[in-house]
Amino acid sequence: MTTVTIIGTGLLGASIGLGLKASRKIPDLEVVGSDRSPDHLRTARSMGAIDRAEADPAKAVRGAALVILAVPVLGLYDVMEDIAEALEPGAVVTDTGSTKTDVLRWARELIPSETSFVGGHPMAGKTDSGPSAASADLFEHAQWIIVPAVNASEGAVKAVAGLAESLGATPRYMDAEEHDAYVAAVSHLPLMASTALFRLTRDSEAWPELSLLAAGGFKDTTRVAGTHPDMAHDIAVTNRTQIIHWLERYREALRTLQEQIADVEDEEGLYRYLAQTSMEHEAFMTGQVGRVEVDQKGEMPEGGMDDFIFGSYIAERMREMTKRSEERMAAREREERMRREH
Amino acid sequence: MTTVTIIGTGLLGASIGLGLKASRKIPDLEVVGSDRSPDHLRTARSMGAIDRAEADPAKAVRGAALVILAVPVLGLYDVMEDIAEALEPGAVVTDTGSTKTDVLRWARELIPSETSFVGGHPMAGKTDSGPSAASADLFEHAQWIIVPAVNASEGAVKAVAGLAESLGATPRYMDAEEHDAYVAAVSHLPLMASTALFRLTRDSEAWPELSLLAAGGFKDTTRVAGTHPDMAHDIAVTNRTQIIHWLERYREALRTLQEQIADVEDEEGLYRYLAQTSMEHEAFMTGQVGRVEVDQKGEMPEGGMDDFIFGSYIAERMREMTKRSEERMAAREREERMRREH
Repeated sequence: MTTVTIIGTGLLGASIGLGLKASRKIPDLEVVGSDRSPDHLRTARSMGAIDRAEADPAKAVRGAALVILAVPVLGLYDVMEDIAEALEPGAVVTDTGSTKTDVLRWARELIPSETSFVGGHPMAGKTDSGPSAASADLFEHAQWIIVPAVNASEGAVKAVAGLAESLGATPRYMDAEEHDAYVAAVSHLPLMASTALFRLTRDSEAWPELSLLAAGGFKDTTRVAGTHPDMAHDIAVTNRTQIIHWLERYREALRTLQEQIADVEDEEGLYRYLAQTSMEHEAFMTGQVGRVEVDQKGEMPEGGMDDFIFGSYIAERMREMTKRSEERMAAREREERMRREH
Repeated sequence: MTTVTIIGTGLLGASIGLGLKASRKIPDLEVVGSDRSPDHLRTARSMGAIDRAEADPAKAVRGAALVILAVPVLGLYDVMEDIAEALEPGAVVTDTGSTKTDVLRWARELIPSETSFVGGHPMAGKTDSGPSAASADLFEHAQWIIVPAVNASEGAVKAVAGLAESLGATPRYMDAEEHDAYVAAVSHLPLMASTALFRLTRDSEAWPELSLLAAGGFKDTTRVAGTHPDMAHDIAVTNRTQIIHWLERYREALRTLQEQIADVEDEEGLYRYLAQTSMEHEAFMTGQVGRVEVDQKGEMPEGGMDDFIFGSYIAERMREMTKRSEERMAAREREERMRREH
């Protein structure tokens, strides 16, 4: 029998349990779950995400070949402390935390050297939390970042990569600092941007009216403001420097856009900015990610994206815009004149 | 036969045509469509969004009781100029533009006084554009803002409200300035926030890596960056002052959050900020909108939202956080000491 222990049977932990069992990659598998919340543990058990519930994390890891720590980042320190002495020599310990620099430091301090710590971060999730939101396919087509401790064995790294693959995810290797810098931009900054946007409108005196008018655009842009505060908080305090760096840059980017909008003499420049963003967004959403390879480039219009953007389409729009801008100017002048004459 | 003419058979225009016909509210209805794009017109016709296609807008409005202008905001000026002389006396003209102050001014100048202009703005849409993205139920459960011109007849206002209702939307009346202020906060600011966020990460040297790691949170928060540039541009230049006002406030809100994250002495304050935002976001998403009525309040925990937020849950978390924060501090000190000793 192979025992895999999952500490923390919330959305991620329960989804890993469900997915591991559905994959049937590990023969004679027993999944043991542990959680401070008896409710979560009961739900995870009754939905089949775990085979056995064990409230005490130290007892839960006994005999386990693989231990997955799926608790909020700041909870990892306590859990490592709790399980350290009970871990089997040769066991592999991994986690699902959203930041990695602090986590690897805690593992260096707390996880015994006869075991291997290999940090993990599945780039998947949803705003809903708890085991009832879990599903076996949560990680399908997701990236699963792997950050091995310096002393982790090759076998341990392969085991965690195998875990990711058996759940339908793609393993990607990087070091902790690299990881924290990238996710700050692509995950933590959107979280904070979304949170501040919701906070601002929610605090407005006009909120009763605004909330009635808020439609899809507002709801999408502010969706991650609903992230569980434990998770958002732990992310913020364990990736503080990187998040502050990106918030600074974001405010700068907003100022640039604001100045472009304010520049009445350069509506064409604003249009160019918006057209380029919209087209690059479409390319991203249709799968142009990573380093664009030659065969992907072949699908783009002749001369590449840039030439196309600043090419015929934009030129045509510019002509129209100049015409309309002149018309509106003329209309404004006519109106002014009428007002003066009356 | 009652003729309704739709100028602009893109996403909104074609959806109105489909919805109007599906509702069967107007007996013996003929929907005439006009569009500068022969492609759009052909598609709208073949999918049954319009009964008759007429490239020339002036010809299209002849005999029409109701004329719906569903073109990007800056296109409205040209269209009003084109159709003004051909409108039937007594006809009702409405639009679907995202801003209203300029539109009402153009209508005052161009639409003849024997006809009524009643501005409209359905708060629905999607990033995809064109008639092929249209559907009869696009406006169901949406708010449809109605901004009558001062000289619009009562019957004309009722006709436009009836149009909204027959498409499943709820009419809401306001004046142009009020409209533009509200949608700046709840629609245009999310558009610009999303656009600047995508632009910033897209312009990063790390974009090849970032684009691979970008998951649901990034995709939702930046979704409206894919808005058609014609629409985004026209919104920006016709609601410039309001948008700049909200961008200023947003940058201020981001700075506040950034300072809260940077304050290592007040992680509790950050947690309180995040917990309150997350809970209020959930209330919003579960339908607590508008002025909260007594019966809605009844569903909230005893003592109301605020007492609950700053009550037992938060207090419990605060104790935990303080403990963990002390532990991490101690761990850091131990590590420092070890480093010095080696």
